[in-house]
Amino acid sequence: MAAANDQQDIKREKILEASHQRFLHYGYSKTTMNEIAGDLSMSKALLYYYFPDKSQLYIAVMRKLATDYLKTLENRLNSFANLKDAFTFQVNTHHEFIVNNYNFFDFFRLNEQNLPEAIWQIVGEVHSAELGLLSNAIKTEVEKGAIKPVENPEEVVDVLMDALHGIRVGAISQKKTNFPRKEHLEEIHTKKLLLLDIFIKGLTA
Amino acid sequence: MAAANDQQDIKREKILEASHQRFLHYGYSKTTMNEIAGDLSMSKALLYYYFPDKSQLYIAVMRKLATDYLKTLENRLNSFANLKDAFTFQVNTHHEFIVNNYNFFDFFRLNEQNLPEAIWQIVGEVHSAELGLLSNAIKTEVEKGAIKPVENPEEVVDVLMDALHGIRVGAISQKKTNFPRKEHLEEIHTKKLLLLDIFIKGLTA
Repeated sequence: MAAANDQQDIKREKILEASHQRFLHYGYSKTTMNEIAGDLSMSKALLYYYFPDKSQLYIAVMRKLATDYLKTLENRLNSFANLKDAFTFQVNTHHEFIVNNYNFFDFFRLNEQNLPEAIWQIVGEVHSAELGLLSNAIKTEVEKGAIKPVENPEEVVDVLMDALHGIRVGAISQKKTNFPRKEHLEEIHTKKLLLLDIFIKGLTA
Repeated sequence: MAAANDQQDIKREKILEASHQRFLHYGYSKTTMNEIAGDLSMSKALLYYYFPDKSQLYIAVMRKLATDYLKTLENRLNSFANLKDAFTFQVNTHHEFIVNNYNFFDFFRLNEQNLPEAIWQIVGEVHSAELGLLSNAIKTEVEKGAIKPVENPEEVVDVLMDALHGIRVGAISQKKTNFPRKEHLEEIHTKKLLLLDIFIKGLTA
């Protein structure tokens, strides 16, 4: 039984990898279940046995990406010399994640007004995990005596994360553009680093 | 001729005032041109002479509100003892403006996906004016020697304003809710003041 489950897990993992590549290179709408099955030399019936429809497959890939992203943060976030390096690592990792997976998120642009609840749940879980990791980074610095005590680290990180999410590009800053355009990602990243620089100075001053 | 124009201006101003009250108390969709004409004991034809339709009247009221808002900022923004007081005044004035005109903005909630270009233009003008006023406040402090030189004040204020706009409330932080709910305004205001406090410390440290 265990071996059978392992086999299933391996197959499931292979489906997620192949789907991720498809979604990444062709986008959600231009990817078919047929093509994914073809990439894996797998029958369409078997693919549907694992994932009943394309949106559930997409959500499973997103969950995997979110887990990998959080692992990257977890593995490093407590090994920094100071708070600025820790937070910069978060901002850089997030930036790289979005740049590398940009086309994958076409689903967000296509369904902006009506994202499935499961997507919001993953986004919420990532947000909570980041909140936990970053407030721990603050607590560690306070314990080390590297910065003065922070009354409510979670509140501070929550505000900082909202603030970072608020960063937009120039003329479009007021208009609703929920998912930034690819050509704006670098400028947004630069602005986030400036915000971070001032914010961390204020926190550690 | 001049007297005739003055008369027209006075009438136009009265229409804007009456409309503001209607939009504020009953909302955009529940206000009719008929009612506004009635409030002013004016013929509907004359009202339409001044404003060809309700949306153009709404935009004119919004332009008036924006002008008043900016005047409040302009009149005070160069008379503060320090940068924190100046920026706090902006955040507080903005908060009061939204609280006092909350129902007026039902138009934004109703037309979130399709706001007229004229609205975006006003929003953009307010944004530019705030950017100018607040970066001047930084320059003044630098000239007084109260804070160390800031390389690019406009860039810093732009980032801060984006960051302030990004402030949301708890669980909804990730979901798109472009116009905040009334019961969240106080919490958002508190979070903005926290962000401002840390940011200004970072800027003046």
